[in-house]
Amino acid sequence: MLNIGLLGAGRIGQVHAKAITAHPGSRLVAVSDVNAEAAAKLAAEYGAEARDTQAILADPAIEAVLIATSTDTHSDLIEAATAAGKAVLCEKPVDLSLARAQACQRAVAGSGRPVMIGFNRRFDPNFTALKASADAGEIGKPELLSITSFDPAPPPVSYIKVSGGLFRDMMIHDFDTACWLMGGTPESVSATGTSIVDPAIGAAGDVDTAVVTLRYADGRIAVIKNSRRAVYGYDQRVELLGSEGLLSAGNVIENTVTKATTSGVVAAKPEFFFLERYMRAYAAEWAAFVAGLEGGAAVPVTLDDGVNALALAEAAARSLELGRSVALAEIGGASAQKVATVLA
Amino acid sequence: MLNIGLLGAGRIGQVHAKAITAHPGSRLVAVSDVNAEAAAKLAAEYGAEARDTQAILADPAIEAVLIATSTDTHSDLIEAATAAGKAVLCEKPVDLSLARAQACQRAVAGSGRPVMIGFNRRFDPNFTALKASADAGEIGKPELLSITSFDPAPPPVSYIKVSGGLFRDMMIHDFDTACWLMGGTPESVSATGTSIVDPAIGAAGDVDTAVVTLRYADGRIAVIKNSRRAVYGYDQRVELLGSEGLLSAGNVIENTVTKATTSGVVAAKPEFFFLERYMRAYAAEWAAFVAGLEGGAAVPVTLDDGVNALALAEAAARSLELGRSVALAEIGGASAQKVATVLA
Amino acid sequence: MLNIGLLGAGRIGQVHAKAITAHPGSRLVAVSDVNAEAAAKLAAEYGAEARDTQAILADPAIEAVLIATSTDTHSDLIEAATAAGKAVLCEKPVDLSLARAQACQRAVAGSGRPVMIGFNRRFDPNFTALKASADAGEIGKPELLSITSFDPAPPPVSYIKVSGGLFRDMMIHDFDTACWLMGGTPESVSATGTSIVDPAIGAAGDVDTAVVTLRYADGRIAVIKNSRRAVYGYDQRVELLGSEGLLSAGNVIENTVTKATTSGVVAAKPEFFFLERYMRAYAAEWAAFVAGLEGGAAVPVTLDDGVNALALAEAAARSLELGRSVALAEIGGASAQKVATVLA
Amino acid sequence: MLNIGLLGAGRIGQVHAKAITAHPGSRLVAVSDVNAEAAAKLAAEYGAEARDTQAILADPAIEAVLIATSTDTHSDLIEAATAAGKAVLCEKPVDLSLARAQACQRAVAGSGRPVMIGFNRRFDPNFTALKASADAGEIGKPELLSITSFDPAPPPVSYIKVSGGLFRDMMIHDFDTACWLMGGTPESVSATGTSIVDPAIGAAGDVDTAVVTLRYADGRIAVIKNSRRAVYGYDQRVELLGSEGLLSAGNVIENTVTKATTSGVVAAKPEFFFLERYMRAYAAEWAAFVAGLEGGAAVPVTLDDGVNALALAEAAARSLELGRSVALAEIGGASAQKVATVLA
Repeated sequence: MLNIGLLGAGRIGQVHAKAITAHPGSRLVAVSDVNAEAAAKLAAEYGAEARDTQAILADPAIEAVLIATSTDTHSDLIEAATAAGKAVLCEKPVDLSLARAQACQRAVAGSGRPVMIGFNRRFDPNFTALKASADAGEIGKPELLSITSFDPAPPPVSYIKVSGGLFRDMMIHDFDTACWLMGGTPESVSATGTSIVDPAIGAAGDVDTAVVTLRYADGRIAVIKNSRRAVYGYDQRVELLGSEGLLSAGNVIENTVTKATTSGVVAAKPEFFFLERYMRAYAAEWAAFVAGLEGGAAVPVTLDDGVNALALAEAAARSLELGRSVALAEIGGASAQKVATVLA
Repeated sequence: MLNIGLLGAGRIGQVHAKAITAHPGSRLVAVSDVNAEAAAKLAAEYGAEARDTQAILADPAIEAVLIATSTDTHSDLIEAATAAGKAVLCEKPVDLSLARAQACQRAVAGSGRPVMIGFNRRFDPNFTALKASADAGEIGKPELLSITSFDPAPPPVSYIKVSGGLFRDMMIHDFDTACWLMGGTPESVSATGTSIVDPAIGAAGDVDTAVVTLRYADGRIAVIKNSRRAVYGYDQRVELLGSEGLLSAGNVIENTVTKATTSGVVAAKPEFFFLERYMRAYAAEWAAFVAGLEGGAAVPVTLDDGVNALALAEAAARSLELGRSVALAEIGGASAQKVATVLA
Repeated sequence: MLNIGLLGAGRIGQVHAKAITAHPGSRLVAVSDVNAEAAAKLAAEYGAEARDTQAILADPAIEAVLIATSTDTHSDLIEAATAAGKAVLCEKPVDLSLARAQACQRAVAGSGRPVMIGFNRRFDPNFTALKASADAGEIGKPELLSITSFDPAPPPVSYIKVSGGLFRDMMIHDFDTACWLMGGTPESVSATGTSIVDPAIGAAGDVDTAVVTLRYADGRIAVIKNSRRAVYGYDQRVELLGSEGLLSAGNVIENTVTKATTSGVVAAKPEFFFLERYMRAYAAEWAAFVAGLEGGAAVPVTLDDGVNALALAEAAARSLELGRSVALAEIGGASAQKVATVLA
Repeated sequence: MLNIGLLGAGRIGQVHAKAITAHPGSRLVAVSDVNAEAAAKLAAEYGAEARDTQAILADPAIEAVLIATSTDTHSDLIEAATAAGKAVLCEKPVDLSLARAQACQRAVAGSGRPVMIGFNRRFDPNFTALKASADAGEIGKPELLSITSFDPAPPPVSYIKVSGGLFRDMMIHDFDTACWLMGGTPESVSATGTSIVDPAIGAAGDVDTAVVTLRYADGRIAVIKNSRRAVYGYDQRVELLGSEGLLSAGNVIENTVTKATTSGVVAAKPEFFFLERYMRAYAAEWAAFVAGLEGGAAVPVTLDDGVNALALAEAAARSLELGRSVALAEIGGASAQKVATVLA
């Protein structure tokens, strides 16, 4: 039985609290949050204690922490937790700054503690089935990957301003999915973007609709489409064209009912948003973390994966700015200042 | 917090133990089973006590029992539990004998205790969405209902022999679904059946494939198709034709991946069997029972519903035997001997 | 090049005129109709001559006739045309009276002329693909066939009165489809019916909604559902459950566009009615007739098939009347009077 | 009745000969081809005369010509035919050289003769239904268009070498579709491409897999995916995301049969290639041309549309070469030499 400390009691922290508790091999022991009341409330709900973060990290009975705090604290907390000997599952992204994330990567390297990044798509049963089929060679050699990822509605502009931008906040999931499905990192990135959903998003220095093309050294291509608004629900699909066929993972819909009338044949919408669509994925993600720790095996999504996805986001932002393809190699020295520039 | 006693620690008892425990308003206190070891194991798993049934019924701290024992004990246990002041959720069918079920109905009537019968289809999110649409008048006046209900594989013939036959054991779910969706009981029943899947099922006096047509007094028709074998998985679909359209509830499939190759476009199969397909329904069923008890409202599937479904099963069995349509009115005095005859 | 005479210039005659003309191996030479104007108009459209029926039958240059006149003339015209040495393609049904159709069958037997009955479902590319798969053993041994066949809207009651009733006029297609897909004739028939769509249809002695179950000697079952009204379009589907799987042939839809909005995901309706859905089938039907004649091979749907389907319709009508299963053997001596009774 | 001359008796010429003949308002009078035998054969099949092209253009009885010759002759023939007073329907692309196409555009401008370019997608019933829905405002304001267009198998490398490359030969259809659906021409183009299907295609200076992103002045984006190989058939799909929903036009499949077995649920493949998928579109295209001429209305796809699509192809080729976004304005003076460079 693993004793777990949860850092962050917001919406996503609550999701994780449930998954930690439901798993027979883990127990939620303590919860911290900058909002003490939120921590107390969530702790009470699951029979855990509200503590401050330092107390959690100092407790030798706690083997692992789940970091679900605001993004700007991720790198610091990953470093502090691993230094304190904890295993870590940290929400995405690792950081808004690639340089800071890379520093974190170096800092953690010596600790020997496992750090897993919470890319939930890797645990969605539809995407894992697609990957299993591709890995089994059922469509031959993969050539062209397409990811459609639309949110139901844009977040408030106040959130957009601190989010790191669409590439670091939203498409980062798809960058990781591409790396995961293609089995590696692309060579170059080309981005097109617009703030057609809401000009206020553009005024904040971000885009709300974007298409990014990734080119691999062996000639494979991936294309990612993002929109902050799909009024019909959370649109999360993947297509992979290979030399011997096409794999497609479709949306999960609310129910299987169709209604045929003189107006046409109406089916249910996709499940509304990530809490619905990836509910099962969060449980599977947590189970994979626990299994990795218990079995001595590596955790399935590493800090390196988190840094890679962030580098792709950085490259996409630069491509959008420069109007040209950007090689991943150019991004090595990207700085936190860069991010500030993009988000003006 | 309701304290619950679980009678029966078999496969379906285990499903219910999980649902009882997962619900925030109920707690599994005690488990009984004719197999003491099974009761002990299940009780231990959920932090409950293994007791004998009498001790559970005698415990004033236990407000409700869930009956998941073998069918031949259902009526006795419903009577004993309600006499002991317990609320009851009992698995289907109420009994194999309509007469015995009717006696149980009379016995319980005076107790004032709620008895709910576990017809899980009523809590499947697909079927409830279909019913909500029909009830909202979205397809006008319902006219023709079709239910497809195929199991993935037949049970052992040893089970068939004690099951009460396909109509009482399997199609009883569909009889209840028809009554629920059509808002009442049909006037007459016409059955066709065969043991084409396995002649040994025929030799045991039962059928494994059947089509039953129900006729309502107002002219509406329902048709139910059952097969004990659909090798591609559990096939559970409903179609309702109305004056202004058609509602269809399709299968829940294992995942949303399709694979297009030179061989065609392959999609996933329906979820394998009832534990997969109706997993969410069992939780919703239990929640509805708890809500009914807590809110002072009636439970949503009553003992009367259970007796009605059994009467339809009885009528179908007789129709099959006689080769003619059987009015439900003829079935009033059906006896336990009748059942024995049908199953030779 | 076959020279063809067309008897009947109504709606279905016009469909056939087009198919005859479009086929490179046949030429429309002459058209007759009780309405001379209609015959003249259709003949002119296709560069043929309007003649009276006797003249067509007497013309030695005409090798085959297509009978698309009213049903009550079919038997007489089949007899006259075969006696005149013509090959015949006759629209369904052969007759409203089974006895008359059987007399026609005997009369034609000696002529040696091929008579094909126009059951268009046998030439629908979806149903032929389903049959090919079943015949190839892809779902093992067939066990349970389901046919859904709903018209978009009921015909006028004036038509209903002379139609022979739903079983002879509409379900006769499905009776033939069942015989074709199951490779033979069932042993007994059980019917349930109602006039829930329009009470005036009931007042005319007919039903507008019916479910008929066919039982084969080897235990296989087929069930046919008919409704005169499906407001969303012509609903024409087949499902065949076998020991190793399920084959389903779905509707042909108007286009492949779906629209996802906050109201759900809307797809197109099924093609509206038989002229749309079976457009390709009519061409294939005619091609099969021509190929049969040219190649010296038999035509693929015989007068015997037409009489068989009519016997099933007769059995269904009797089953509905008597409220019991009717063996096909009982139907041998069915008379035209019988029909009059049913349609009162 | 329009008298039509057909220039080109190859595969696509044969398709058009059929459409011309089947239309009640047009008649195929003459056919020419560099291969005199092919012209004679096709002419004979449709009761037309084989002539040389000059004779066709000189015949005052011929009102319109359909140009289905090799691409390098298109511009010359368009100029000659309009100079001779003919209306023209010319297959895509107008030319491989944008400069030459623009010269043709200027030459034709004064003639007053209508020139239509054969972009068949505009006449596909699925895409027209999608456009009608979008134009009716059913998904609000369009924001992001996605076109998937995969051929079943690559053409021979010998064809690739003279084709003008994937952008001018294949994706030109999709460039036109984008302009048609978005109601205008984009501002800039960004291309990524690879020869992963067949390195020999790369050696010939072309790509076989490409993703091109179009950016409109108002912020809208379109993305086009092309592959020369989709072994499961011709994959032709469109998705349009708008402020109030998503429209999707799916593939047309071979039949509606599905087969469920222990291996999954198999559906039919998309129709194999353009002759199957766009069979109805070719007839509708021809009908639109005839209607435009007869009614005095403009033809629905103009030479300007053809030149626009070619400019986009030119911009895509340059973007691929330069690794940056290319504004359409930069392309104004593109020369034939440019094309030669790209195809080495």
